[in-house]
Amino acid sequence: MEGLRQRLVEFAAARRWEPYHTPKNLAAALSVEAGELLEIFQWLTPEQAAAVMSDPERAHRVRDEVADVLAYLVQFCTAVGVDPLEALAAKIERNEHRFPVPDEGADVNPGVG
Amino acid sequence: MEGLRQRLVEFAAARRWEPYHTPKNLAAALSVEAGELLEIFQWLTPEQAAAVMSDPERAHRVRDEVADVLAYLVQFCTAVGVDPLEALAAKIERNEHRFPVPDEGADVNPGVG
Amino acid sequence: MEGLRQRLVEFAAARRWEPYHTPKNLAAALSVEAGELLEIFQWLTPEQAAAVMSDPERAHRVRDEVADVLAYLVQFCTAVGVDPLEALAAKIERNEHRFPVPDEGADVNPGVG
Amino acid sequence: MEGLRQRLVEFAAARRWEPYHTPKNLAAALSVEAGELLEIFQWLTPEQAAAVMSDPERAHRVRDEVADVLAYLVQFCTAVGVDPLEALAAKIERNEHRFPVPDEGADVNPGVG
Repeated sequence: MEGLRQRLVEFAAARRWEPYHTPKNLAAALSVEAGELLEIFQWLTPEQAAAVMSDPERAHRVRDEVADVLAYLVQFCTAVGVDPLEALAAKIERNEHRFPVPDEGADVNPGVG
Repeated sequence: MEGLRQRLVEFAAARRWEPYHTPKNLAAALSVEAGELLEIFQWLTPEQAAAVMSDPERAHRVRDEVADVLAYLVQFCTAVGVDPLEALAAKIERNEHRFPVPDEGADVNPGVG
Repeated sequence: MEGLRQRLVEFAAARRWEPYHTPKNLAAALSVEAGELLEIFQWLTPEQAAAVMSDPERAHRVRDEVADVLAYLVQFCTAVGVDPLEALAAKIERNEHRFPVPDEGADVNPGVG
Repeated sequence: MEGLRQRLVEFAAARRWEPYHTPKNLAAALSVEAGELLEIFQWLTPEQAAAVMSDPERAHRVRDEVADVLAYLVQFCTAVGVDPLEALAAKIERNEHRFPVPDEGADVNPGVG
């Protein structure tokens, strides 16, 4: 990850895009790209969505949008000085307390949370 | 990253959330969390946004939402069988051709793309 | 609609929120609220989603998020001087040419567009 | 609004898109289109964003995305049986109690809410 982060920093610097890469703009761009990933799925049935990678054109779009989301997430984190892996590790620990392992047979729909 | 990915897989399995973790649902959840990250910034001036991490409560929310975005991105990638770091490396290479380094003094606003 | 638009203008003016209600901030807020509407559905099966209004708490959230999306859309349109009903009427006309009525039996998945 | 709503219903029926127009899919599509509206603004300075309608190409995109957001909002509301104008009127009334008119000189940043 650190190697890719460094390449993204150099990529933006060489194109003089840093003035545009404010935390607010990068948060907006991340949200826009996450929307573009969702767009691939919006009209698909659950079955079509599960088979998305067997269609070469859709598979390419999925990889492309995943890359865009990750790029903006990493650039956002660079702009605000957050280590995303550290943030995720801390969150998993909080969630292990917040969502205890359920008893057998309990309702486990995450939608109720 | 692989260690965190594995913990997320085990976390969801222990709570029997896998049936909900379809590619379509995870793409929606990723987009929702990216919106929650953007929400922190929506009314901030560029100056307030640049100083977001000096406010402890906002800094905590930023780390929390970054973790949620990364968690759903990793879980989405697991569900569709994409390696996000590989996808990002391939995208950076494509972008190095698509956006050549500009001449001195050229207009560099990425908004025109 | 014009009556509600006027109430939103007065509401924001009385609270001195106009300086925050820039086109960019309102576009961000609209996107955030659309994400909150989607959040209600993210883990629901198609069947649960179809019955969303039979759960009083979810029905209230749906109405609340619909109102927020419409409020920010109307406020955005006021900020940029666009009449949303006129924009929609013009778009429907363009779409009637772009998507001709399909022949009997043709594949009609909008996801291909 | 009712005339446009009716045209959208007929438009989708003639193209046999109704099976795709589930509440969940329409909420996703609404969120995707709100992201496309935000995309126009993501790299713009506040000054550029304020002048967005003086650029004919951007002005066209703004009107187009506003129409898409409103179309999916109206179609979503039709699918769940919600009157969006009624929902907005009720929300404005709730907000008039939730956000009392501030005293002269009070901090009015909506970002604190």
